[in-house]
Amino acid sequence: MKFARLGAVGQEQPVVIADDRTYDLRGLTRDLDGEFWASGGPARVATALAAGDLPLLDGADSLRIGAPITKPGAIVCIGMNYAAHAAESGAQPPTVPVLFFKAPNTLAGPNDPVTIPRNSVKTDWEVELGVVIGKRASYLDSPAESLDHVAGFVVANDLSEREFQLEVSGGQWSKGKIAAGFSPVGPWLVTPDEIEAGKLGLRSFVNGEPRQDSSTADLIFDVAHIIHHLSQYMVLDPGDLVLTGTPEGVALSGRFPYLAPGDVVELEIDGLGRQRQEYVAFGAGR
Amino acid sequence: MKFARLGAVGQEQPVVIADDRTYDLRGLTRDLDGEFWASGGPARVATALAAGDLPLLDGADSLRIGAPITKPGAIVCIGMNYAAHAAESGAQPPTVPVLFFKAPNTLAGPNDPVTIPRNSVKTDWEVELGVVIGKRASYLDSPAESLDHVAGFVVANDLSEREFQLEVSGGQWSKGKIAAGFSPVGPWLVTPDEIEAGKLGLRSFVNGEPRQDSSTADLIFDVAHIIHHLSQYMVLDPGDLVLTGTPEGVALSGRFPYLAPGDVVELEIDGLGRQRQEYVAFGAGR
Repeated sequence: MKFARLGAVGQEQPVVIADDRTYDLRGLTRDLDGEFWASGGPARVATALAAGDLPLLDGADSLRIGAPITKPGAIVCIGMNYAAHAAESGAQPPTVPVLFFKAPNTLAGPNDPVTIPRNSVKTDWEVELGVVIGKRASYLDSPAESLDHVAGFVVANDLSEREFQLEVSGGQWSKGKIAAGFSPVGPWLVTPDEIEAGKLGLRSFVNGEPRQDSSTADLIFDVAHIIHHLSQYMVLDPGDLVLTGTPEGVALSGRFPYLAPGDVVELEIDGLGRQRQEYVAFGAGR
Repeated sequence: MKFARLGAVGQEQPVVIADDRTYDLRGLTRDLDGEFWASGGPARVATALAAGDLPLLDGADSLRIGAPITKPGAIVCIGMNYAAHAAESGAQPPTVPVLFFKAPNTLAGPNDPVTIPRNSVKTDWEVELGVVIGKRASYLDSPAESLDHVAGFVVANDLSEREFQLEVSGGQWSKGKIAAGFSPVGPWLVTPDEIEAGKLGLRSFVNGEPRQDSSTADLIFDVAHIIHHLSQYMVLDPGDLVLTGTPEGVALSGRFPYLAPGDVVELEIDGLGRQRQEYVAFGAGR
């Protein structure tokens, strides 16, 4: 199933999309939050859908698309998880997953305009496969247990300000990852039964020109490995978002300019949909 | 005023402590969350207290003390913010604040037993002044604006597993900061009118022996500088917790052993109260 949240910022309503129709989930859940994933929400939706119990949402096409998740307790990121991206960043491929956090309040809709942060000259895109946790995961015994703890998969843009991240950070990357709107997610969350996360093409474009073009088959640490590994160090809660790393083809490589006002970034992952963001100067429209 | 949350895990009730009496705030707020701080909750409490409108909470002394805040959107930490601690860690003092995150679900009560993580041999204490955000802070114009965005101050133990943080992390510290229970906070939140955050003694003890003994006057970047600086890179939301860094005297220095099951850690900051945690082996009582 494909879950989404549609409506104005802060007023998104939960929907499920099936056979190109958009069904209203407000009679069934308040939101697509951790409690929904952990309490068997998707199974209740499948039952209601099969029984024809869900109303269609009128005018769905005219609504803004929000992130398909809300209020994640944590956004956990895996760094340097594609060998070619590690190389373009001037780093060796890691021998264990490297983790850092984004602030959860960076979450944004997939097509929301992105404000380039004040004083930024190195705002950079990063298309990533995102994994939403569906069940509390702590000290999993093996990677084979991981998928059972996943609610679904999403497209994410792990936006990064490279000067903030690398030059004025003392080496801790989070400073360049947490500006407002720096985590566009969506358009949909797709449940694990409909997606093979290990071989998805993922691509990004700036003003229509290709930038990243890779496959999750090239991940150094795959989804099952990541979730198992994280669970040895932290408790992953339902609704948490795990970003699995970005492939080569970002501006940090030196091969492309950083983002400027007026640029348009598009990102897509096979089966998970496409994002489109316009970049806006700081202070514009204030 | 001193705010606290008393009761079993997940069932804490909000209270205010005045003249050694504990008043029940349940008639006034659901919890001590971001909405409470941002909506003028402390002023409403002060009014009700002055009017004699708050009921005493019977049996308060027999209740567990929880963290005085709940569900922070983020726990932001400043690293190496005391020169002598940077030195004992083998690092130069930073020239700009270095930030990293703890997962919000690490929050714990000040006296809750702490489970040493599975496979940990380097669990370490860190007494820190914690700052709770009371008002949304984004791009503050100057450090002078910071204090107006603070709800109050707390004692925090920024527990750290040094092998996870430094040896198997690829250099990103968060991996050693996010085990369950790794952020004991409390006993109280004290409002800014009652505390001068810039000259507070802060100390830690292991099994009654002194470890850390310093003053917030030794902070490289003080509270006002930190909040202003963070607000240039992220949006600080009401209820967020900022940990300001730890002074010298931790096990990482090599001068003291790391924590072992049976150890008792106590931490205190002038005017903010005292914590006491027993350390428990992984798997004990499971």
